[in-house]
Amino acid sequence: MNLLTISYTGTLRDRLKDFFESGFFQSFITSLIIINSVLIGLETSDYVMVHYGEIIDLIDLTILALFSIEIILKLFVYRLNFFKNGWNIFDFMVVAVSLVPAAGSFSIFRALRIVRTLRLLKSIPKLRLIIESLIKSLPSIGWIVVLLSIVFYVYSVIGVNLFGEMYPKYFGDMGKAFYTLFQVMTLESWSSAVARPIIEGVPFAGVFFITFILIATYTTLNIFIAIVVNTMNEVSLKDLKEEEEHIKDFVSDENRKLQLQLNQIQKQLKEISQNMSTPKEYEY
Amino acid sequence: MNLLTISYTGTLRDRLKDFFESGFFQSFITSLIIINSVLIGLETSDYVMVHYGEIIDLIDLTILALFSIEIILKLFVYRLNFFKNGWNIFDFMVVAVSLVPAAGSFSIFRALRIVRTLRLLKSIPKLRLIIESLIKSLPSIGWIVVLLSIVFYVYSVIGVNLFGEMYPKYFGDMGKAFYTLFQVMTLESWSSAVARPIIEGVPFAGVFFITFILIATYTTLNIFIAIVVNTMNEVSLKDLKEEEEHIKDFVSDENRKLQLQLNQIQKQLKEISQNMSTPKEYEY
Amino acid sequence: MNLLTISYTGTLRDRLKDFFESGFFQSFITSLIIINSVLIGLETSDYVMVHYGEIIDLIDLTILALFSIEIILKLFVYRLNFFKNGWNIFDFMVVAVSLVPAAGSFSIFRALRIVRTLRLLKSIPKLRLIIESLIKSLPSIGWIVVLLSIVFYVYSVIGVNLFGEMYPKYFGDMGKAFYTLFQVMTLESWSSAVARPIIEGVPFAGVFFITFILIATYTTLNIFIAIVVNTMNEVSLKDLKEEEEHIKDFVSDENRKLQLQLNQIQKQLKEISQNMSTPKEYEY
Amino acid sequence: MNLLTISYTGTLRDRLKDFFESGFFQSFITSLIIINSVLIGLETSDYVMVHYGEIIDLIDLTILALFSIEIILKLFVYRLNFFKNGWNIFDFMVVAVSLVPAAGSFSIFRALRIVRTLRLLKSIPKLRLIIESLIKSLPSIGWIVVLLSIVFYVYSVIGVNLFGEMYPKYFGDMGKAFYTLFQVMTLESWSSAVARPIIEGVPFAGVFFITFILIATYTTLNIFIAIVVNTMNEVSLKDLKEEEEHIKDFVSDENRKLQLQLNQIQKQLKEISQNMSTPKEYEY
Repeated sequence: MNLLTISYTGTLRDRLKDFFESGFFQSFITSLIIINSVLIGLETSDYVMVHYGEIIDLIDLTILALFSIEIILKLFVYRLNFFKNGWNIFDFMVVAVSLVPAAGSFSIFRALRIVRTLRLLKSIPKLRLIIESLIKSLPSIGWIVVLLSIVFYVYSVIGVNLFGEMYPKYFGDMGKAFYTLFQVMTLESWSSAVARPIIEGVPFAGVFFITFILIATYTTLNIFIAIVVNTMNEVSLKDLKEEEEHIKDFVSDENRKLQLQLNQIQKQLKEISQNMSTPKEYEY
Repeated sequence: MNLLTISYTGTLRDRLKDFFESGFFQSFITSLIIINSVLIGLETSDYVMVHYGEIIDLIDLTILALFSIEIILKLFVYRLNFFKNGWNIFDFMVVAVSLVPAAGSFSIFRALRIVRTLRLLKSIPKLRLIIESLIKSLPSIGWIVVLLSIVFYVYSVIGVNLFGEMYPKYFGDMGKAFYTLFQVMTLESWSSAVARPIIEGVPFAGVFFITFILIATYTTLNIFIAIVVNTMNEVSLKDLKEEEEHIKDFVSDENRKLQLQLNQIQKQLKEISQNMSTPKEYEY
Repeated sequence: MNLLTISYTGTLRDRLKDFFESGFFQSFITSLIIINSVLIGLETSDYVMVHYGEIIDLIDLTILALFSIEIILKLFVYRLNFFKNGWNIFDFMVVAVSLVPAAGSFSIFRALRIVRTLRLLKSIPKLRLIIESLIKSLPSIGWIVVLLSIVFYVYSVIGVNLFGEMYPKYFGDMGKAFYTLFQVMTLESWSSAVARPIIEGVPFAGVFFITFILIATYTTLNIFIAIVVNTMNEVSLKDLKEEEEHIKDFVSDENRKLQLQLNQIQKQLKEISQNMSTPKEYEY
Repeated sequence: MNLLTISYTGTLRDRLKDFFESGFFQSFITSLIIINSVLIGLETSDYVMVHYGEIIDLIDLTILALFSIEIILKLFVYRLNFFKNGWNIFDFMVVAVSLVPAAGSFSIFRALRIVRTLRLLKSIPKLRLIIESLIKSLPSIGWIVVLLSIVFYVYSVIGVNLFGEMYPKYFGDMGKAFYTLFQVMTLESWSSAVARPIIEGVPFAGVFFITFILIATYTTLNIFIAIVVNTMNEVSLKDLKEEEEHIKDFVSDENRKLQLQLNQIQKQLKEISQNMSTPKEYEY
């Protein structure tokens, strides 16, 4: 830390950059995240809190301080480029969120400290890859989600209008209707708890629920199919490209043989043609 | 509108046609649909209705009027061709359904006004594409649905005959039996609420429910597989066709090289053959 | 029918065979099955039974008689070959089962008359195809079903031993345990109704249920994947074969062109070689 | 057994090895496992235990003795190589676990005797193949399971912090929270039994459950897709390789024809060139 205060030169920034990108630093941060996560998990136990509460809080604060220093140094090193990487923004927000509960005492903020664990998703390369591929496959389902939202909206409005007054628990307002339809879409107790009681009061409600389930299921099914087909296609396209290259190479090789033979023939022809002209000259 | 009443010429129809197909008109209608949908959604809130009910109703009526005029003008422009496009029929019916509640006061008709939102499915190109592909994949599952219907019918009749008298709630008549079997197919409370109470009275009922679940699940699974395989196949067939073209082009190119060489050889041969005859002529 | 009694000749058998295989006969039987199915469905309504019960019973008996005559005639025509086709055995059993309730009066046999509807699966070609493909894909999942049965057996025995005495409703004997595990596999109320009450008495029961769900789900997942991969593979193999043929044909065509050119070259060479020898002969 | 005590020679080990690998021995062990499994199943019936309990226990002990001798002899034959095969370790542990209940009388150990049935997974080749392929596809989902575990951990900690005090049944400690989240992931009664009561006390809990379901479902979906794509890819890669070979062979064959023709041409050319030089020599 001494080094830092002495020379604010570009050289320092470069050295810090090298340090941040070193394997040692990555492992160190990963270890800190794991230790921190385990500690926050332990804090849920009353027994642990009574006996080791103070030391855990101390370690927790120390690690949070280290994380904050890390972010500050990175901001110093990378300046605004820091925010050009999505993962950095993610890191920044996770630490920022963690700094709030340190000040306040609301249990919800205290609970949110655990999101620091999510920094693992960035610092373990394999997980990072999976997350990135999960996010990359989102656009392919984007419009189907828009479609599903429209279906939800239409059914919510109908639900509130038709069943809202009689069954406020399920269709009291748009929020409740959305939640209930989400429950119905997951098929959880859709009939025994939701649909059957409503059908007793409004006989044609069965049509409402059955059409909603058919549409919602068929649409989510297609979200699923979109992802499968996309993933499969990428993989099989790569395989096809490879096969194509192999066949092309093979055809190329095979034809080269023919070409060589043709070259020989041309050479033979040249000899003949020379032979023909030479002896003829002799004949003169 | 003045323009309309002055000259009922083909030119007007053409101009209107151009107008309807312009990007501006499409965006305008899409905006109207979205505004209208949001308003109908807001109407579900009592607070909003008390404070802004009148103005919302006014806007709602205005938009409905604009939609009606749109349909009328389109009918005037496209005449009966209007009904040759499935989406136009859809638009027509949505507006027609919306006009009914404007007259009556039944809550169900009032609730159905929200189906106007579904016009978004037509006016947003991406959604239109998804809907069309969803509909296009329906025929491939058509016969499996017929098969499933037969299974439902057979199990409903058996269910009504065997459990109808003792458990009228679930198997009182064909309609209730169908609904109950649909619930069982979604696996919702099939055992805890439906099968277990019935098995207590009719021990062999377990066979009824388990065979139904196995058959229904296996069949719907095959609906699903039919769609996946169809979609995959289309995509992979396109890839294969492309690969085929690439290989063909490559083979073609490679062989052209050989052909060129052969052409040279033929030319050489011609020269030789001419050379052979010419000097010989000289010899005469 | 007169014809039948007059001449019991092979010619009659041939004529009957032609008749059975005619489109008219197929449609006639299909219509009978549909009419019969609808009637049996109508019988579930008390109102219909009170007012039209006698006429429906009469039609039902007539159709059953026609079905019986059909089977008898087919047995006469095809002799034992009749039983070589799985679908015929299916028809035979369906009619045989239907003849039992005509004699007895047990409601279960009466209910089973509806299985006649399943004859539609044979008489509608498209359905027949689907059923045959569904059955054809069964062997590919056969051994996974054996595996699943072993898992069920092991968990049933453990379940009966550990929870049988305390929770006889769910694990009283092997049959109940099997049924309960089937319910758990479908995930229906597995926790709220089955696992949670048991965990309260036997804390480690959670391990039992969670491992069972993971294994059963993972295994059924693999049943599913086996079918998808099999179906996909068949389809894509056909596509690949076609692509292969196209490429081969193309290569063949392309090479034929080269071959033709080579033929020309050989012809040219022959001419040259003849030219060479002929003029030389002239020189002598 | 006499043979064993007489000559502890390498020859004996070889003979035993041959015996262990013989089809007869395999079938014998498989039969023993099946008989033993059926008997342990029968023991769950009180009636059977009262009437045949002693004889069943006797057979059970005999079979266990045979299994133990088998393992001991195999250890003698294969020495430490025995433990190099995963299936042998599995066999060893299954028999070892079975030996414990023979000593103690705890019902849990008695129940675990049924795991001997799992030896079938090894001794039936088809099942062995499936198990091996199931295990082989595990690594491809390994990291997604790690991801899912992190999600579970984060949501458990948040759940215990926010709902632990008010709803100890579901979120009392980390273990209960894990179990509850597993139940929610399987969608079983997630809303009617778990989420709705909690939402009444903590309104924003809906966000907690809905985001968890979306993330958990989307992630498990990707586990599933990973397996499908992996399996499909293996199969289709094999097909592609085959197609590639066929095309290559075909191209090779086609080009051989051209090569043969070229050979002929070269021969013709040689003749011409010889002809040319010979007659010319004649001319001198």
